[in-house]
Amino acid sequence: MPRLRSASLPEHIGATVTIAGWVHRRRQLRSVTFLIVRDGTGLAQVVVTDADLRARLADLPEESVVEVTGRAVGNPAAPAGVELVEPTVRPLGDPAVPPPFDVYRPELTAALPTQLDHAAVALRHPSRSAALRISAALVAGFRSTLDGLGFVEVHTPKIVAAATESGANVFAIDYFGRPGYLAQSPQFYKQMLVGVLERVYEVGPVFRAEPHDTTRHLAQYTSLDAEFGFVTDHRDVMELLRAVLAGTLGRLANHPVAPAEIPAVPPEIPAVHFTEALAIAGASPDEPDLAPAHERVLGEWARTEHHSDFLFVTGYPMAKRPFYTHPATTHAPSGAPSQTYSNGFDLLFRGVELVTGGQRLHRYQDYLTALATSTGSPREGRAPSYRFL
Amino acid sequence: MPRLRSASLPEHIGATVTIAGWVHRRRQLRSVTFLIVRDGTGLAQVVVTDADLRARLADLPEESVVEVTGRAVGNPAAPAGVELVEPTVRPLGDPAVPPPFDVYRPELTAALPTQLDHAAVALRHPSRSAALRISAALVAGFRSTLDGLGFVEVHTPKIVAAATESGANVFAIDYFGRPGYLAQSPQFYKQMLVGVLERVYEVGPVFRAEPHDTTRHLAQYTSLDAEFGFVTDHRDVMELLRAVLAGTLGRLANHPVAPAEIPAVPPEIPAVHFTEALAIAGASPDEPDLAPAHERVLGEWARTEHHSDFLFVTGYPMAKRPFYTHPATTHAPSGAPSQTYSNGFDLLFRGVELVTGGQRLHRYQDYLTALATSTGSPREGRAPSYRFL
Repeated sequence: MPRLRSASLPEHIGATVTIAGWVHRRRQLRSVTFLIVRDGTGLAQVVVTDADLRARLADLPEESVVEVTGRAVGNPAAPAGVELVEPTVRPLGDPAVPPPFDVYRPELTAALPTQLDHAAVALRHPSRSAALRISAALVAGFRSTLDGLGFVEVHTPKIVAAATESGANVFAIDYFGRPGYLAQSPQFYKQMLVGVLERVYEVGPVFRAEPHDTTRHLAQYTSLDAEFGFVTDHRDVMELLRAVLAGTLGRLANHPVAPAEIPAVPPEIPAVHFTEALAIAGASPDEPDLAPAHERVLGEWARTEHHSDFLFVTGYPMAKRPFYTHPATTHAPSGAPSQTYSNGFDLLFRGVELVTGGQRLHRYQDYLTALATSTGSPREGRAPSYRFL
Repeated sequence: MPRLRSASLPEHIGATVTIAGWVHRRRQLRSVTFLIVRDGTGLAQVVVTDADLRARLADLPEESVVEVTGRAVGNPAAPAGVELVEPTVRPLGDPAVPPPFDVYRPELTAALPTQLDHAAVALRHPSRSAALRISAALVAGFRSTLDGLGFVEVHTPKIVAAATESGANVFAIDYFGRPGYLAQSPQFYKQMLVGVLERVYEVGPVFRAEPHDTTRHLAQYTSLDAEFGFVTDHRDVMELLRAVLAGTLGRLANHPVAPAEIPAVPPEIPAVHFTEALAIAGASPDEPDLAPAHERVLGEWARTEHHSDFLFVTGYPMAKRPFYTHPATTHAPSGAPSQTYSNGFDLLFRGVELVTGGQRLHRYQDYLTALATSTGSPREGRAPSYRFL
């Protein structure tokens, strides 16, 4: 009998069917055992009254893998309104060694080190597997939005001959006896491919040899990058980014495991110039960058003043932007300290940097000049790039 | 005036419009210059009769970037049946340094080293950019087929603490003072995630420190990997793979830059057992593996006998398969040398290995036994994984 996945059980009420999955939970009552089987599509309830089988299930711990054949009957109290009765249960492997936490409880409360040491099991908790499913949906939304706008997906090399943006913070490898590095970003490949395809994006790993025991950095993560040509300035990039965010989060609208509250992307995301951002955050006007504490204040401000989870900060000083950033072509607010501002921006989400982007230099001579005069302070040159993991 | 992309010009006949892109070609005739502008959507013809502008275009080499405003008029002889007349042309950067080959010629005939040294320009040749577009379409087809079957996309770590399948052929890195390696495949992550999501796939880079100056190996490439649970044996994997191939190549059916001839995936891909494959290839029955020359003969045979570009070879000896491969559960043909065959297969495409896959061990004790008795000959353990780049 071909195996069904549990989500399809409601279509088979009255039939004898076979499912397979993991023992999610056994509820052993006085005269009945409820066996909850979890597969890739959800949970199925199996009603066991046979004494022999009940005794065998007592020795089959949670997370053991089983195949169950039984008759599907409607029961509004069961998951998806259906349960299996008069079952036979066939273990497909040895009884599982019980994990150090219960995957079936509503919350996974084990300490983080315990969860990480048992990640292959901890990720089975519905809250954790939901995060993986939501990640996949968001990436699919990112891609489909950009596909719809004529972007082409590319896959660029991750072993590179030179550090992407600076000599610092790269992982070095031995590449057949020559030095190689893990790419910090696909930035330069993207820019070259704009000359080829005009609009490109990439979803792929990036590597940064930075301490990652903070909430703001990871040594490897999946970066969502886009780059396109023929912009007037950074505002074109911000407009695209808003559309991409809306399309990405839109994927969650009818997603079975989406959170109850999906962040709303406003029709226009509020934007403040860097110098205004410093003032809002109560920072000195001479600060060259926003500190995490400043970003948190800005997140509160956007929430209160604009009812928005998102806030653009534009015009970061050139000294804190990678050398390939285009200098400002719009005026800084009056009274701003005299320095060179950029056409670069950050997008904050609830007070945390989510995306860095901007207009790039596009003339060869400008690159030569920028490289010659660069202050050598390459902050973190990501261009529309989500920190995804 | 907002810029249009060239593909939309037929919708604007009679209007004055602006396009932007690269000077693909200038054809300077006696009284007219045809300026062909290339953007991310294709080519547009601009008709220049003004003497001053013709003189300026003479100094604007191919690959310079321009913005052109003109009136769109129908002309069946022009690309997409439309051309711009009475144009103004504004260079958006310096005149391009002419590349060492002509991007506009039907064939890109420069020597490979020249193309690679100028890849950012060589890739602009329509034949080369078409390959990038086709790659993107194939990956999209791979994903959408698997999404439709309930698979979940995952992104697994590429820096790992131990070599995936063997100690050989990995790139070593210094991970904050501890040894790290670049992942050769997502195999073990995939298998763990089958326990979480049941059906998973990944599109991502893999790294192999093997000499890559052959047609069969690359030090880094994009791998298309899938893994799923609750199979009976390798034949379930082969059936899935056939569906994925059909869905992947199906994406090319109406693709604007698809090749004229798209490989056909037969309703059932022919399959031969490893021992039969040796006989067909004229190899000794004692050979432990298929050599590239054998695979080429098998490709011819599949073409001649089955009219198929694809051929499965099943039952490879365990000695040549990674330790996590499931031993054969089906009988080898009578007369086969006495050895342990596997539930592993290769898929050949026109005589070249395209995919390796099989059934995995799924019991803990089987892994312990396999590790204890492994012959230590981990061939190249990919599981449904296309060598894509």
